[in-house]
This record gives sequence, structure tokens and C-alpha cells, in this order.
Amino acid sequence: MPMFDHVEKLKEFIHHPSVSTDSNFREGMRGAREFVARLLSGMGLQVEVVQTATHPIILAERPGEASWPHVVIYGHYDVQPADPLNLWLTPPFEATIRGNRIYGRGAADNKGPLLANIAAVARLLEKDPRIPLRITFLIEGEEEMGSPSFPAFLEKYKERFRKADFVYLSDTALPSENQVVITCGLRGLALMDLHVTGAKMDLHSGLHGGALRNPIQALAEICATLHTPDGRVNVPGFYDGVLDVEPWERAELKKLGADEAAYAGFLGISAFHTPPGLSPFEAVRFGPTLEFNGIGGGYQGEGTKTVIPSKAFAKISCRLVPNQSPATIKRLLTETILARAPKDVKISFVDQHQGETYVVVPPGRSNTPKDQPPILARAFKAADAAVTEIWGRPPLYLREGGSVPIIADIKRVTGLDSIMLGLFLPEDNLHAPNEGFNLDVMKRGIDTTERILATVAGSR
Amino acid sequence: MPMFDHVEKLKEFIHHPSVSTDSNFREGMRGAREFVARLLSGMGLQVEVVQTATHPIILAERPGEASWPHVVIYGHYDVQPADPLNLWLTPPFEATIRGNRIYGRGAADNKGPLLANIAAVARLLEKDPRIPLRITFLIEGEEEMGSPSFPAFLEKYKERFRKADFVYLSDTALPSENQVVITCGLRGLALMDLHVTGAKMDLHSGLHGGALRNPIQALAEICATLHTPDGRVNVPGFYDGVLDVEPWERAELKKLGADEAAYAGFLGISAFHTPPGLSPFEAVRFGPTLEFNGIGGGYQGEGTKTVIPSKAFAKISCRLVPNQSPATIKRLLTETILARAPKDVKISFVDQHQGETYVVVPPGRSNTPKDQPPILARAFKAADAAVTEIWGRPPLYLREGGSVPIIADIKRVTGLDSIMLGLFLPEDNLHAPNEGFNLDVMKRGIDTTERILATVAGSR
Repeated sequence: MPMFDHVEKLKEFIHHPSVSTDSNFREGMRGAREFVARLLSGMGLQVEVVQTATHPIILAERPGEASWPHVVIYGHYDVQPADPLNLWLTPPFEATIRGNRIYGRGAADNKGPLLANIAAVARLLEKDPRIPLRITFLIEGEEEMGSPSFPAFLEKYKERFRKADFVYLSDTALPSENQVVITCGLRGLALMDLHVTGAKMDLHSGLHGGALRNPIQALAEICATLHTPDGRVNVPGFYDGVLDVEPWERAELKKLGADEAAYAGFLGISAFHTPPGLSPFEAVRFGPTLEFNGIGGGYQGEGTKTVIPSKAFAKISCRLVPNQSPATIKRLLTETILARAPKDVKISFVDQHQGETYVVVPPGRSNTPKDQPPILARAFKAADAAVTEIWGRPPLYLREGGSVPIIADIKRVTGLDSIMLGLFLPEDNLHAPNEGFNLDVMKRGIDTTERILATVAGSR
Repeated sequence: MPMFDHVEKLKEFIHHPSVSTDSNFREGMRGAREFVARLLSGMGLQVEVVQTATHPIILAERPGEASWPHVVIYGHYDVQPADPLNLWLTPPFEATIRGNRIYGRGAADNKGPLLANIAAVARLLEKDPRIPLRITFLIEGEEEMGSPSFPAFLEKYKERFRKADFVYLSDTALPSENQVVITCGLRGLALMDLHVTGAKMDLHSGLHGGALRNPIQALAEICATLHTPDGRVNVPGFYDGVLDVEPWERAELKKLGADEAAYAGFLGISAFHTPPGLSPFEAVRFGPTLEFNGIGGGYQGEGTKTVIPSKAFAKISCRLVPNQSPATIKRLLTETILARAPKDVKISFVDQHQGETYVVVPPGRSNTPKDQPPILARAFKAADAAVTEIWGRPPLYLREGGSVPIIADIKRVTGLDSIMLGLFLPEDNLHAPNEGFNLDVMKRGIDTTERILATVAGSR
């Protein structure tokens, strides 16, 4: 198969409406999956479609000699739902090009970046069919659902890539089309719901108000204890072992040149509220948090209903940084809440999902592990050189505030680190109407990945 | 018209599905209204149907000489919605008799008690067509909607009853079928919604968590300041001028013989939470409160959504006791919240309705007004005697925790006090499925009201 037209292929990919969370899109999921499988198979890879509890995983291999470097390329073929549909300028599943951008659901998350990496491999193999590089594509269809089948898949298939050298993916952001970021860390996650129950039924606030504690009051009183006034999380042990930010990381972040006033304007807030010692930009990348994602209880409609509700709840999530364990944080949070809760209400928890933190340090930094695998270090250096040459300036190495639990899962199960080359822009409207992808970025992304892989293979 | 069969008439009344809050029941409202109007007209009263913005008010008069005592009898012909329908043993709008109870929506609230009072007047007029008593029935169709038209009606029609002697009604509870309670006070109400806004849109908690204050956190922190740990409302000035409970009121409440353990069991709570110095039964009648009737913000569905919401809100209601003004309490609460709220979020309020407190003291008590009108005092004494004779023991005089704003409105606009003879029982399931009314209570209620009115007229 000759090197394909990546724009035409991206259009075709977008035309399959692969919304993983909605069973009405099963055909679109199948279409997108078969599209990817055909493409990889046409490039000469051995394609296997691995069944899972929901949407299958595509596992495609270019085998080779044991001495060859081995890269695992990750991506996902599923997309977010497209609604609200009325806010789209053009139909979300009919790819449309305006200027140098292609619009459609999944254009940036993750079809465009994934296809860039596939195209890079296709070109590489076309130019040098005997290139000494083993490649395994791992392309899931559950990313937008939280990858429920991925850990079990990893356990079952880990022997296929446990001895690979590194993971490579493009499912993170770059701040502008002239500045690449290689993401070097992701925050972990620990989520749980807190439920407070007072009386066994909703009560008339006139007939019973004054006799008992309102569960909304109890919930507010508990939640209000979970932060200090200066913005730290007020759960004993929460910060145990959290490492200080390395000076090189702060310096790298400064190079981003982000503007606090512009950020406050974007958020629409009059003042930031960060823990001591961290700027807003540092806090979202290097600091752990405890957030309330939702709260509910009693009457929420228009007007009034003078009820003392029986129940109230809050949805709590913690973003975690290296050396924090989601399981430990959940235990500390649960214990703290139970110790602080008034005894005249009932407290219960619903455990939600969690994800480990992840960090990888590029070579030559103050905290680079002494035993960093040489091919990983070579890949980082290749990425630095390729980005510098193709984009005109070196990449920045930054931790992100978000969480991609599968990256930590891969590390935990296989020991593999990930090189995350960001390809989507702030204006790409991920998870929102009018998602788009910059075709110049895509082209440079293909060049960059091709160059990195070629260098890793040692053929340049 | 001869004295009617009150049970047959109550069945007929219940058959009109007069749900005031649902426009699908307009026919039922009309039917119930015409039923009442016909009944009163058949008793020789001059009936007027006064249009309002929603459901008309029935104004029915038995005029007489200026020297005759004048009683205003209040009631309402509208009922609560009947849903959930599947929990009813028999259809809510087909009155069904089982044992000594009649079941149907509105049986107790307020069709049964209102009809008892109408039947008492019918019997009185039948026995003594020339009885020297002026009577005005004031029967609204908006009670279950919060009586939105009532204040304007009062202002417009006040001359018709401004010089009456007292208001008489049965729209309160009695604790058991052997113990009548005459309600001598009602708590006031002040309601408002508190809205907190953080960023101008919902944010990804990974990308932005740590930079700004979460509005749910701010809301919880504000709400948590509004009570002291020992259960008082923590709003400066909230208790200014609140009178101590009179010893006779505490003594009267003791006679009720209510059992705290049974009450805790009914509520399903392990411990009460009352302000210092008040038992649970005292707190709900004599103490003011601040309750959260609802709270909401962010994601409330199943599973998780890692969002920092833009907005969160709480619905707050205060129950007030004599010498607290709803307007002042709203001002104090607003000022307190604004003073305590963090400056990095936006605070706004939605004003909701309010109602003044009401208290009437029976004759001969430590706090009976020296200028209590003689006919009101006579009516109280008549009620005491009638209840003692018919029910076998004297009534208890208790303030209630609930609020009936129209009673305070009538007092404010016309100066009239109310005698509230309770006729519904705890097991009558007001506002709930399988509402019912005890027919023995109804019969004794008719006898009691007839005796009271006859005594007031001076004919006994």
C-alpha cells in the first residue's frame, strides 16, 4: 500500500460516527474500527481485533528481530458524543475543510493525531520496508468511556509488549501551532461520592424544623472542613511524600509565557485561589487538589418547597501528583470525613474510579532516573531534535493537570514509559461543538513522528 | 335546606378533583367551587365568587344587625396533587369509606374539616333560623399554591369583615382523636435562594483544578458558617427581640405527653440536634430556624464527571417566631453572607416569598393582652367548654411550627385574631398517598363548632 493521502483518510475516519458511550452508534464504532484495521493491515501489519466487554481493541504488530527497538503506539478510535448538534456549523460526522482546518467530531480527539502517527509509520515503511523497528499499535474504542476494559486487556496481553522500549502517543495538547509540548506527567485521580442521610424521609420544615440536623447543613459543614483558608487540602496526610517541583520544571513552564491576566479573563474570575507557593499555572500542573464536582439534595426547582430533605450528597474528586496513591488518599479522605461528621447523621460513600499519577523525566534533568532505559532516552533526544528542526523551536517538557489513567496503568503493568507529543490546539474544541484539527499541525506531526521513529530505529 | 348528610356531602366534595397547581384540573376546581357555593347558597347565605389571578375565592355572608357577633370562617376548596397514584389503595378522587375513616385526596386537607364547619353552621341555622350571629365564609382555591391572590383580595375586600370579631378555622392538626389542640401561634417564613458563581463556564477539573475556588466549595464554606456547633443560627441579630417561651406554654406542651424516643424513631434519627434550652418538641414550636431546603450544582448523575462547575446554589428558609420580621431576617442573612463570602466568587440572591409570624394568646394567661376583645375571649372560653364536654378533656393551647401566612395577613390587614381548632390526625396522610379523615372526629368537630358558635351568639 502506497503512502496514503492523510487528509482524505481523516475525512473517511471522521465519517464513521464512533461514539462509544451511546449504543445507537454501534455501526459507527464498527465502521471506524474496520477502517483502522484495514488501514494497518494494508500497511503490512498483523492486525488482531481483541474483544472486550464493550468495544474491541485493535492490536496491530510489525514484528521483527529481538534486537530491534520496539515502540508501542497508542490511540483511540472512539469519540465524544456530538450534541448539542444545533451548535455545529457543519454536520459533526461530515468532515468539512475551512481554511487550514478540518472540522468534525473526533478530528482532534483522537482521529487526526492518531492518523498522523499511522501516516508517519506508513511513510516510514514505504521508504524503508526493512527498517529495523518493531511497532505495536494499541488502539482502543473505550477512551471516552474511561477505558473500562483496558486494565484487564493489559494484564492478558502484556507479554506482547512488556519488553518494548517505550510508548508513543499524540493525545495531549500543544499551546500554539508554533510550540510543541511533550507531556511528562499526568495527575492521578481519586473519586468518590459522599452521602449524608438525616431523617428517613423528607420532612416538612415547619413541623420538624429545629429538632434535627438537616443533612444539607451536615454536608456543607463537612465539605467546608476539607480546605484550609489559604487553599490547601485539609485532610491529614494528604501531602505526605509529595515532592517539591523541580526548578527545571518551573523554568520550563515560564518559557510557555502564559499570561495570568489573560487566564483570569478566560475563566471569568476576579482572582485566583491557589495553594501557597504555587502560581495558577503551577497549581494546575504540580499541585494536588480536592474538588467538588457536584452537589445535590432536597428541592432544586423554581420557587420554594419547605422541606428538610432526607439525603444530600457531594461528588468529590482529587487530582493527585507523584507519590500520592489514590487508594491511600481515598482512605484518608474517608477517615477524615467520618471523624469530622456530626454523629446525628448517617455517612456513606460510593467509591468511584481512580487513576495513578504518572511522571516521566526526559534525559539530562536534575531528577532523571539514573537507570533510564537507553532507547527511551534516545527517543526523547530524537523527539527534541525533530521538533526543533520541524517546528523551529525545541519542545517544552511539562506535566499536565489532566489524567490519562491508562498511561499509568501501562507503566504499572509493563514498566513502559510514554512519550506524549501533543498535537491539538486550544482552539480545537475537544468535547465541544465544532471540534476541528489544524492540517498544518497534522502535516508537521507526521514529519515529526516519522523522524523520531526513524532515529529510534537507527536508520538516520 | 335541611341539615345535610355530612358524609354524603364530603364524598361529593372529594369527587371534584380540585388540584389548584395543575391546570389539567380546571374542571375539578370549578366543580368543587360550585359545590361549595351551592351548599352555602342553599343554607341561605349570600354567595359571591370573587375572581382572582388564578382560582376564585368564595365569599358567603349571613348578614345581620351590627350588634350581633360576627365570625369569619376560613377554609380552602383546593387540594394537593394526588401523585404518586400507584401508592393509593383506592382512587384518590373516589371517596371510599373503610372503618370509621373516609379516604380520598383532600379528605383531611381541607375538605373534611371545612365541611364540618359548614355543617355546623347549617345545623345552627336550621335549629335557630334567627340566631343573632353574622357569619362570613372566606373559602379560597389557592391554599396549596401559597395563596398568591389572598393579600390583594384582603386589601380589596377588608371592609366586609374588618369589623368582625374573630376568624375561625379548622386547618391544623390534633395529636390524637381524644385530644384537641387549639393552635395559638404559627411560625413566620423568610425564603431566599443563594447563588454562587465561579468561572464563567464549567471547567475540566484536570486542566484547571488548583487555580480557582470551586463555587460548590465556596457555597459549602458559606453555608457552614450559618449555624453554631450547638445548633443556633449564626447570623448576627437573628435572635434580637425573640421572647422567651412562657412557662404556661411549656407546661401545656408537657401535657401533650409526646415521647422523644418515639419521635426519634418516627424520624429515623439517632439523636436530636436542637438549640440550647429547647427540647425537640419545644424547638419546632418556639424556636426559629435556618434550614437548607435544597442544594445543587455541577454533575449529579451516576458515575463521575470531573468538572469544576460554574455555579452552585442553596435554597434557604427561615422559620421565624414572634418579634422576628421576615424582611429584617432576609436583610441580616444577606448582609452576613456577603460579609463572609470569599471575594473570588460572585454572590447573588433570589428573593422568595415570606410570611409574618402569628400568635394569639387565650384569655387568662400570663401574656394575654390586656385589651383582648371581649368576643374573642368569649369564643376561646366557649371553645374550651365545648371541647371539654364533647371530647372529654380540655383542649391544649399550642403554637405550631408550621406557617399559615394568610392568618398573619388577616391579622395585619384587619386586626382579626384566629381560633384554629385542629381536626386532622397524624395518620391522615396530608399531602401524601391514602389521605384520609376520621369520621368520628368529623362528627365531634361539627358538634364542637356548632356549640362554640351558638355560645358566641349568646343563644346558649
